[in-house]
Amino acid sequence: MTNPQLSPNFYAVIPAGGVGSRLWPISQPEHPKFLHDLTGAGHSLLQQTFERLAEFLPADRILVVTGETHGPAVAAQLNGLKPNRLILEPAPKDSTAAIALAAALLVRENPDAVIGSFAADHLIGDQGAFAAAVAEAVKVAETGSLVTIGIAPTHASTAFGYIQAGGALAGFETARAVTMFVEKPDAKRASEFLATGECFWNAGMFVVRASLLLELLAETEPEMVQTVVKLAEVWHTDARADALAQLWPTLHKVAIDYSVAEPAAARGLVAVVPAAFAWRDLGDWAAVSDELGEPERLTVIGSADVAAIDSTGLVLSTQNRPISVIGLEDVVVIDTEHGLLVTTKASAQGVKAASEHFSKPTASDKQAE
Amino acid sequence: MTNPQLSPNFYAVIPAGGVGSRLWPISQPEHPKFLHDLTGAGHSLLQQTFERLAEFLPADRILVVTGETHGPAVAAQLNGLKPNRLILEPAPKDSTAAIALAAALLVRENPDAVIGSFAADHLIGDQGAFAAAVAEAVKVAETGSLVTIGIAPTHASTAFGYIQAGGALAGFETARAVTMFVEKPDAKRASEFLATGECFWNAGMFVVRASLLLELLAETEPEMVQTVVKLAEVWHTDARADALAQLWPTLHKVAIDYSVAEPAAARGLVAVVPAAFAWRDLGDWAAVSDELGEPERLTVIGSADVAAIDSTGLVLSTQNRPISVIGLEDVVVIDTEHGLLVTTKASAQGVKAASEHFSKPTASDKQAE
Repeated sequence: MTNPQLSPNFYAVIPAGGVGSRLWPISQPEHPKFLHDLTGAGHSLLQQTFERLAEFLPADRILVVTGETHGPAVAAQLNGLKPNRLILEPAPKDSTAAIALAAALLVRENPDAVIGSFAADHLIGDQGAFAAAVAEAVKVAETGSLVTIGIAPTHASTAFGYIQAGGALAGFETARAVTMFVEKPDAKRASEFLATGECFWNAGMFVVRASLLLELLAETEPEMVQTVVKLAEVWHTDARADALAQLWPTLHKVAIDYSVAEPAAARGLVAVVPAAFAWRDLGDWAAVSDELGEPERLTVIGSADVAAIDSTGLVLSTQNRPISVIGLEDVVVIDTEHGLLVTTKASAQGVKAASEHFSKPTASDKQAE
Repeated sequence: MTNPQLSPNFYAVIPAGGVGSRLWPISQPEHPKFLHDLTGAGHSLLQQTFERLAEFLPADRILVVTGETHGPAVAAQLNGLKPNRLILEPAPKDSTAAIALAAALLVRENPDAVIGSFAADHLIGDQGAFAAAVAEAVKVAETGSLVTIGIAPTHASTAFGYIQAGGALAGFETARAVTMFVEKPDAKRASEFLATGECFWNAGMFVVRASLLLELLAETEPEMVQTVVKLAEVWHTDARADALAQLWPTLHKVAIDYSVAEPAAARGLVAVVPAAFAWRDLGDWAAVSDELGEPERLTVIGSADVAAIDSTGLVLSTQNRPISVIGLEDVVVIDTEHGLLVTTKASAQGVKAASEHFSKPTASDKQAE
């Protein structure tokens, strides 16, 4: 089921990279967050992301970029993914390298390609509103903008970039110009943005012509552009493996928010399409608890028999043994074969440090997040 | 190694009955508290109790009374226990029935028998002081008293019986008369007792002539005395099994503190030997944490790799998977094959209710505690 109004030049790219170490012990370097069904939906976050795009895009226009080690698991989860649309990185190099390689490959296939980048591990609530926002963003991108789909902020979070919206863009339903783009401000500045009532969170959803993306990137990371263009030239030949082995380790690790969005903003090329759908980044267990839980109750995910007394928060178990939680507010208990986490929503950010205690880092693990 | 000063008429009885359901998930009806090594001592609480007595008593003067279902486990743990000193109850009937049966058996062997009852699951710190207290209690008991070994109270607990001590008993080093015996008073009365500076906790350590015990019990539970005497008559014959099957179910369940100690106190027959040793009843996980833990730290029992951040309390694991505890004060995490408990020291009393949620009661389980 595709959308006839959507440009035939549009391709979706899903960079599936981060471990999600704040979601230990479910997320581990070998089993990263995007491969898990954190919400009890019956599908992993990656599957939900793919299916959401496949509702309005033909499968051969959806690419997944992930680490070599996760290739078999990704292929096993995504029956609809075309084998030649699974792009495997020898080692994680952050979002710019992943998306730039996809852009370089697509621009060779279709010089007018427009690409949209969609995180593999976000939740989106309203499929129709999502599809409409993407369709509008593609139209705006075809006029030569870098378009973000902006999320209405709910609080002065310091975990997101902020987009300051300007006037409406003529000829579009909801798109607006962007006057400023600030990646992860401090708390004071975040509050100031929030107070304007004219700002949005950047949730990493970018839509832009592939050629413009490479042009913008060339301003901050010219060597990276040369490298991904070289890789794209040999991608469908026997030389791919050697080129990857030689060139991939040289790439600079940088988030696309810095490498592409900031030069675009400086040139006045950024636009925003406000999201009219519920969105959540399940960044830590507090976010999972907020997404799934009811206040004043202990929410249980999994089939364990849980005896809760005077407790609120979240219990997630993949084990079959009984669990008792007594006298704890906003507790988070994650009970898996690979580890046990006991914390509170307020302390959920500390999970990353704990997960690092348990990881026995190798060269590639160190790069994983 | 026996104590030549100790009366040859003295026998120790260890009633090993209670499940210890406040120590779920370690304690379960099939694996009660006394069979576990809760302190990392290398021996179960029952083994520690037996060994403490075997230091000064020959093995044929130590009896263990336990449920039929626990017989094999008890025998396996106690290599030193004589097979004919393991008394098996068809069903739990509380402490009076267990001790009265032992008294009836021993008085047939030795009309001058003095028996001491020692809980299977208490910790005692100083072996020499314990042995000395028992030796003195036996001497006092031989004069016709029911002697308790009294624990100096540390706070106004409502979990113990209180003994109000009177004047010193002439001819003994530390023994005193008892003016009042009150089982588990309310908090106000417990505070009043504590304020007198002349009271002790009753820790269930009674020493008394077996014949006097049966005589005292006949005042409150005459039918029980008749029953245990009948059982003792046939104990070493082929008729034991039939008699147990017929008579045991008829026994009244009552704690010995009520059935024997109260009539003895009314007749002015109770004496107390103050304990000069550290003692603890590991009644719940807060007590275990207090016994084993250090304040301001998270104490870990077991070999699990535990990453603790900003946390205090107790983690006990019999599993090998990593555990992370973040941002919780006085937390209690008990991680076993049979269940997972997450609570706080302040809520540890609630564990009993949780364990009842998980037990699928049978007729005999219902009687277990």
